[in-house]
Amino acid sequence: MIIMKTDATPEQIAEVVKEIKKYGLRADVSTGAYRTVIGLIGDETKIPFDHFATLPGVKEAMRIETPYKLISREYNKFSETEDERFVVKVGNIEIGGDKPVYIAGPCAIESKEQLFKIAEGVKKAGTHILRGGIFKPRTSVHSFQGLGAAGQEEAREALAWLREAGEKFEMPVVTEVRGETQVDLVADYVDILQIGARNMYDQDLLVKAANTGKPIMYKRHFGASIEEFLSFAEYIAAEGNKNIILCERGILPVGKGKSYTRYILDVGAVPAIQKETYLPIMVDPSHAAGRRDLIFSMSCAAIAAGACGLMVEVHYNPAEALVDGQQMITPDELKDTIDACNRVHISIRPRSNIR
Amino acid sequence: MIIMKTDATPEQIAEVVKEIKKYGLRADVSTGAYRTVIGLIGDETKIPFDHFATLPGVKEAMRIETPYKLISREYNKFSETEDERFVVKVGNIEIGGDKPVYIAGPCAIESKEQLFKIAEGVKKAGTHILRGGIFKPRTSVHSFQGLGAAGQEEAREALAWLREAGEKFEMPVVTEVRGETQVDLVADYVDILQIGARNMYDQDLLVKAANTGKPIMYKRHFGASIEEFLSFAEYIAAEGNKNIILCERGILPVGKGKSYTRYILDVGAVPAIQKETYLPIMVDPSHAAGRRDLIFSMSCAAIAAGACGLMVEVHYNPAEALVDGQQMITPDELKDTIDACNRVHISIRPRSNIR
Amino acid sequence: MIIMKTDATPEQIAEVVKEIKKYGLRADVSTGAYRTVIGLIGDETKIPFDHFATLPGVKEAMRIETPYKLISREYNKFSETEDERFVVKVGNIEIGGDKPVYIAGPCAIESKEQLFKIAEGVKKAGTHILRGGIFKPRTSVHSFQGLGAAGQEEAREALAWLREAGEKFEMPVVTEVRGETQVDLVADYVDILQIGARNMYDQDLLVKAANTGKPIMYKRHFGASIEEFLSFAEYIAAEGNKNIILCERGILPVGKGKSYTRYILDVGAVPAIQKETYLPIMVDPSHAAGRRDLIFSMSCAAIAAGACGLMVEVHYNPAEALVDGQQMITPDELKDTIDACNRVHISIRPRSNIR
Amino acid sequence: MIIMKTDATPEQIAEVVKEIKKYGLRADVSTGAYRTVIGLIGDETKIPFDHFATLPGVKEAMRIETPYKLISREYNKFSETEDERFVVKVGNIEIGGDKPVYIAGPCAIESKEQLFKIAEGVKKAGTHILRGGIFKPRTSVHSFQGLGAAGQEEAREALAWLREAGEKFEMPVVTEVRGETQVDLVADYVDILQIGARNMYDQDLLVKAANTGKPIMYKRHFGASIEEFLSFAEYIAAEGNKNIILCERGILPVGKGKSYTRYILDVGAVPAIQKETYLPIMVDPSHAAGRRDLIFSMSCAAIAAGACGLMVEVHYNPAEALVDGQQMITPDELKDTIDACNRVHISIRPRSNIR
Repeated sequence: MIIMKTDATPEQIAEVVKEIKKYGLRADVSTGAYRTVIGLIGDETKIPFDHFATLPGVKEAMRIETPYKLISREYNKFSETEDERFVVKVGNIEIGGDKPVYIAGPCAIESKEQLFKIAEGVKKAGTHILRGGIFKPRTSVHSFQGLGAAGQEEAREALAWLREAGEKFEMPVVTEVRGETQVDLVADYVDILQIGARNMYDQDLLVKAANTGKPIMYKRHFGASIEEFLSFAEYIAAEGNKNIILCERGILPVGKGKSYTRYILDVGAVPAIQKETYLPIMVDPSHAAGRRDLIFSMSCAAIAAGACGLMVEVHYNPAEALVDGQQMITPDELKDTIDACNRVHISIRPRSNIR
Repeated sequence: MIIMKTDATPEQIAEVVKEIKKYGLRADVSTGAYRTVIGLIGDETKIPFDHFATLPGVKEAMRIETPYKLISREYNKFSETEDERFVVKVGNIEIGGDKPVYIAGPCAIESKEQLFKIAEGVKKAGTHILRGGIFKPRTSVHSFQGLGAAGQEEAREALAWLREAGEKFEMPVVTEVRGETQVDLVADYVDILQIGARNMYDQDLLVKAANTGKPIMYKRHFGASIEEFLSFAEYIAAEGNKNIILCERGILPVGKGKSYTRYILDVGAVPAIQKETYLPIMVDPSHAAGRRDLIFSMSCAAIAAGACGLMVEVHYNPAEALVDGQQMITPDELKDTIDACNRVHISIRPRSNIR
Repeated sequence: MIIMKTDATPEQIAEVVKEIKKYGLRADVSTGAYRTVIGLIGDETKIPFDHFATLPGVKEAMRIETPYKLISREYNKFSETEDERFVVKVGNIEIGGDKPVYIAGPCAIESKEQLFKIAEGVKKAGTHILRGGIFKPRTSVHSFQGLGAAGQEEAREALAWLREAGEKFEMPVVTEVRGETQVDLVADYVDILQIGARNMYDQDLLVKAANTGKPIMYKRHFGASIEEFLSFAEYIAAEGNKNIILCERGILPVGKGKSYTRYILDVGAVPAIQKETYLPIMVDPSHAAGRRDLIFSMSCAAIAAGACGLMVEVHYNPAEALVDGQQMITPDELKDTIDACNRVHISIRPRSNIR
Repeated sequence: MIIMKTDATPEQIAEVVKEIKKYGLRADVSTGAYRTVIGLIGDETKIPFDHFATLPGVKEAMRIETPYKLISREYNKFSETEDERFVVKVGNIEIGGDKPVYIAGPCAIESKEQLFKIAEGVKKAGTHILRGGIFKPRTSVHSFQGLGAAGQEEAREALAWLREAGEKFEMPVVTEVRGETQVDLVADYVDILQIGARNMYDQDLLVKAANTGKPIMYKRHFGASIEEFLSFAEYIAAEGNKNIILCERGILPVGKGKSYTRYILDVGAVPAIQKETYLPIMVDPSHAAGRRDLIFSMSCAAIAAGACGLMVEVHYNPAEALVDGQQMITPDELKDTIDACNRVHISIRPRSNIR
């Protein structure tokens, strides 16, 4: 990390970036209110920090020993104020801002009618952003893989419905990209690209998605520690895209016998991640619970823990959903959940100052 | 399970119990507002249910195929109304009642002075029940094992302090029993016996503690599924002691690298357990987090998920605590936490009716 | 699954396949010594099995309720003899045949010289197939990502070295593909495509790699059950490519504190997988152990459990390796390991017939 | 740790021990061929090592920062030669010696006849030590808990059968103690006390069992890291009983879906533990596999990894066993397993010298 002097000139900054490239690394230039900080992307062991410290305009040059630094509080505190959060703006929605943001919609888009009916319902319930799966990651090749599996044309059609539903009901839209070849196609239609839990480690997909410049909704793998999750989020940031919305969606259960939830919602990850990074962190209670009757309680818990919002799967008739029906709630139930979460959000103010 | 007719006489009930014993099993008689249900403790495969169905006063006789039944909603719905919760009363405190109950105190009692100072602090913060460890389960034999380790006399002295502090500050008291030989001693002094996570599977200790008749604060092992947790709680109920307070305190993390919390608070276990049993379920955020700066958020999350209360470790000066100082908060911080939790508790009403 | 009569004609088989496609599914035609079996790829709930049972040449038509069937023993027992294993042939090497097969080489190819020096060493030690990483999956974007990260041209150069080393030392070669866009490039140069643990769930990559027709070395994710592992292997088989070499490389450890190995080698997975599928299963002791001093013991254990071979990382000077040096052994140490493993392989004959 | 001079007198040693007690700690005196080393049991932070270094006969006084030290190689290398293993002798059986030792018998003793029939069978198969459960740890209070559950008298009767069977077929005997109150009773009858996985953390039971002076067969909990396992083994050693036989019996599986084995046999734990401690480490394939058809392979793997022996559950008719029948093998199958394991044991010599 190279910390520039407060009066460093753009030319001096450019010179440092040029010098960094000589050593085979890339540079992340972060300009704050008071000063500019330049992060190094790549293997810092190759960098002679003593040499960099002597360049014009440089205040300090030091090595940071963490697997993630561009997204870390430690790095960003030099350019921003320490407690400042990072807000991802999508249209006029602020993710990570003062109010919880709700993303909802069907697990999988099944038809235009189904999508529009659910979109209307979730909008009325208080949803800000519409979701709908087109490329579904599935454990069995023999299960329904989403409309996108049928071919390029069918994928375009479903994406167009999503776009149209978003416009009609005035919500930005998000869908999952599961493979590199889907990225450009999907980016033509949606406001946010989602990278699912199973693709968390897929660094080539991360790089490809990051380069669309679109905000990335990035979900934690169910077998990943927080440190790994943030380390891989750094792949997105390293491409210059810091519009990253982190999402906790449950980790693997332990023990013999039934855990009664599909995954374990790691609610402590919410405040723990907030101590590490300025990125917003949401929660997906649907996949964590895997059953509809716990969604309300787990949603309230997520907001109480400080999550900046929720991503919830909704269907007007969960019993007939093609995928994951048992974990979907109805628009009416979503409304109850959102209302309660909004009350919880207020009730936890003021936050504690325990350090 | 034997369901008696609504007009079954005490003699008929006694006759059924007698008959059960003939087959080498024990009976749990549960008398509700409308009818009596008799649970079987032991191997039901030995029981000729057809024969029992013909006994006078018997309405129905059937086998239940779960590892826990005496504490299950399924069993208790016959004698109680389905949605009725089970409240454990300790003095005038109702655990599992209308308001959250807070248990707080030092991890380990270090001296009379330390205990009284903390007791006073937590009482002012809104605590209902005082905790303090005397027999500490520790990973290393070379670590401080609690004052009880010094001998019987030292243990009695520390227990007397706890009793005295409870009386002075008007709080019932709870401490952990780690081994069978400590049970009778501890039961002489405290209102609630705690069985810690590491002893969750210790069925002989469970039986011994249950037979004191005292309420049992029973913590989930960090490697146990909910099904296992409830199956072992059944050992307590099988002794006729249903004053069981369940406590979630975090399970093992997954993944390589840092999880940033000591354990994973399984917040979904709270509503999941409430669907299985009528027993009250609390949360211990201190052990789950393992760090003080997350206690506030994780406490709010636990109450938002529907927990009936919290157990929190407190020290007026966490830095000088002999055990687990990094996870303790001060009495002032506890007050902020309790105040916020009480607000959260109100904010989640009305609860959802999602089924 | 459609089981054809022993005297079914090619025309009848073609007719059944055509009929299957009408319902939107794909067909896997498996021709054995005695009869042909047709597997269905896709959602079988759409198929009217009664109707299929009446088609000419069909003996039986039935639904199979497992997430993997094309690779299952259950499916293949109809077309092959039950105990017959499936051998993947690469040049004149038989993986899954009568003798253990050893794959070895550097974790990452660092230079032509390094590669050739190691290739020569491992060949002398008894290695059959040469490995070398060009696209490295890494937790940190700031770590060395393999020579392939530098660009298309550098990747081609490294691939050409690998090809050349394989030819010089008479070993087929294998390298990892980490993203879809690398598949065609890599397939031009190597005999086996490796899909690493972190990409296990990446179904688009599986499909892409399967369609090269090359054998796939497919590694289990560290957070995946065996059922999940085999379910995702089915994505490869569903493309008509059954040249799949499964590889166990260690799963996540449990418990607080040190496990002393990087991952847990699930040695029981070897015989367990053999009961489920006819595919060969290898073991990678290097990633499982994460330390060189346990490679010998864990290799012997893998072969004793019945693994069809090993994949081992080797460097002539582990201390100077750019990636994972602590887990690499030298060619001499590899020779000791291979020699012992070959002795173990003989010592476990005859295998038990315990069912 | 206090390292005495080679010519230190017994009086000087006694003086050091006395001085240690002044600080509230206990002393472990380990007398080797060349010198005596005194280990400190308790909180070493209370000890002024500078002061101890000046006492007559003391060569060096230093603090060891591990949770286990009395059983560590680091501690014992001063009194013994580094590579020397520690052999636990039971009658004329050497556990941890030159040959694998086999412990076998029924999971639960059901009757005298059942026990004697199995004892005869396992003896013929090559078993050295007879096992048989009397106090069974069970997940459900409604399952068969072993003959010991019926009462003190029934427990004595079953213990006497075990003793008698051992004498008749010339095998030392071992059974599990599940609670403190069973220890003295059991110690009257058996040669080795077993502490099961679920009691691994039960430090009061460890202390009580250690003080019988009998060898302890100590099993790893399924949710414990190796570091925790060894830390708790130290509770036994701290009582002056170092006749500890460690036993790996499988840890919790990961991932969604079926793992196809009941637990994961952590075969890497065998050599990893051998690097940490001089204590012998065995493997229990029966509980790890949870199914009989994998016992042969997993046993061979355990011996190949360097385990000093096996503990296997055997029944002449697994289908009629009251507990865990699905994981038991017959005496004939045990013979095949033992024969193969003995061949494997020879095949892995010479062991590698990889460091």
